Amino acid sequence: MTAEEQLIDGALRTWKSSIERFERAFSNLSDDQLEMRVAPGRNRLLYVLGHIVVVHDRMLELLDAGPRRHPELDAFFLLSPDEGGQAPVSGLKLNEMLLDVDAALSNAFSAWAPTDWLSKHTAVSAEDFAKEPQRNRFSVLLSRTVHVQFHLGQVVLTEPRS
Amino acid sequence: MTAEEQLIDGALRTWKSSIERFERAFSNLSDDQLEMRVAPGRNRLLYVLGHIVVVHDRMLELLDAGPRRHPELDAFFLLSPDEGGQAPVSGLKLNEMLLDVDAALSNAFSAWAPTDWLSKHTAVSAEDFAKEPQRNRFSVLLSRTVHVQFHLGQVVLTEPRS
Repeated sequence: MTAEEQLIDGALRTWKSSIERFERAFSNLSDDQLEMRVAPGRNRLLYVLGHIVVVHDRMLELLDAGPRRHPELDAFFLLSPDEGGQAPVSGLKLNEMLLDVDAALSNAFSAWAPTDWLSKHTAVSAEDFAKEPQRNRFSVLLSRTVHVQFHLGQVVLTEPRS
Repeated sequence: MTAEEQLIDGALRTWKSSIERFERAFSNLSDDQLEMRVAPGRNRLLYVLGHIVVVHDRMLELLDAGPRRHPELDAFFLLSPDEGGQAPVSGLKLNEMLLDVDAALSNAFSAWAPTDWLSKHTAVSAEDFAKEPQRNRFSVLLSRTVHVQFHLGQVVLTEPRS
């Protein structure tokens, strides 16, 4: 591997371990458990799960890795905080969507060379990118990796204390 | 910047924004506020602060960036869970230590070329590193970035809901 490839490999390993830990945390929760809140008055687990589905689904478009699959979930899981209402989709279905979207991302990532990672993402104009080349796909990968870990830190608070 | 430098720059930006957000979250908390728990029965904010100080202090040694400064804090903030006892150091002092240790790390990072980042960290033998070259300094930077974000996700649960 070249130096660039090694650096990207490191970031992809961190992404992979982060999403796998998140996927595992939700893989066996009942509908009742998904109604638990991460702290009193805060988001339900079901909301956190849907929120990550939406953010990762939007990565497909942001990284120009294909069309997104679930834009209908934005209203509930992204544009509003958790107000405790009935979600538009079941936990079982959200878990399936998560695995599907994460797999689509992995599939795209495996094909990209370093120059692809350093290309602009779709939310920045060519003009702005010329001035701010750090607004590339690699920065999106890093920011979404820390995003899932931010929420993981909350999710573990609902697990039995080890 | 070369491609390698751009990739490292992206990771350093994510590290920097993560630690700055953490430092800000703690910069104005009273001793009473530091006694708040991130969730019922879970770690106090004071413990989370000390935990991050210890983990970042240990990075100095792990990255061969200089001697660590506060090994006496490991027993309370790393090797035991938060049992609610009296901490060996005040919140004010922990905040100072955090800024100091993070600055020492930044100082080291600013001097490293891509080959330095891809060098082994100190907790892996030369023999193992030959087989697992991903166990490099760059991977430590990424794993400690997600670590601070994991705890940030918990810390924000004690803040007034926006």
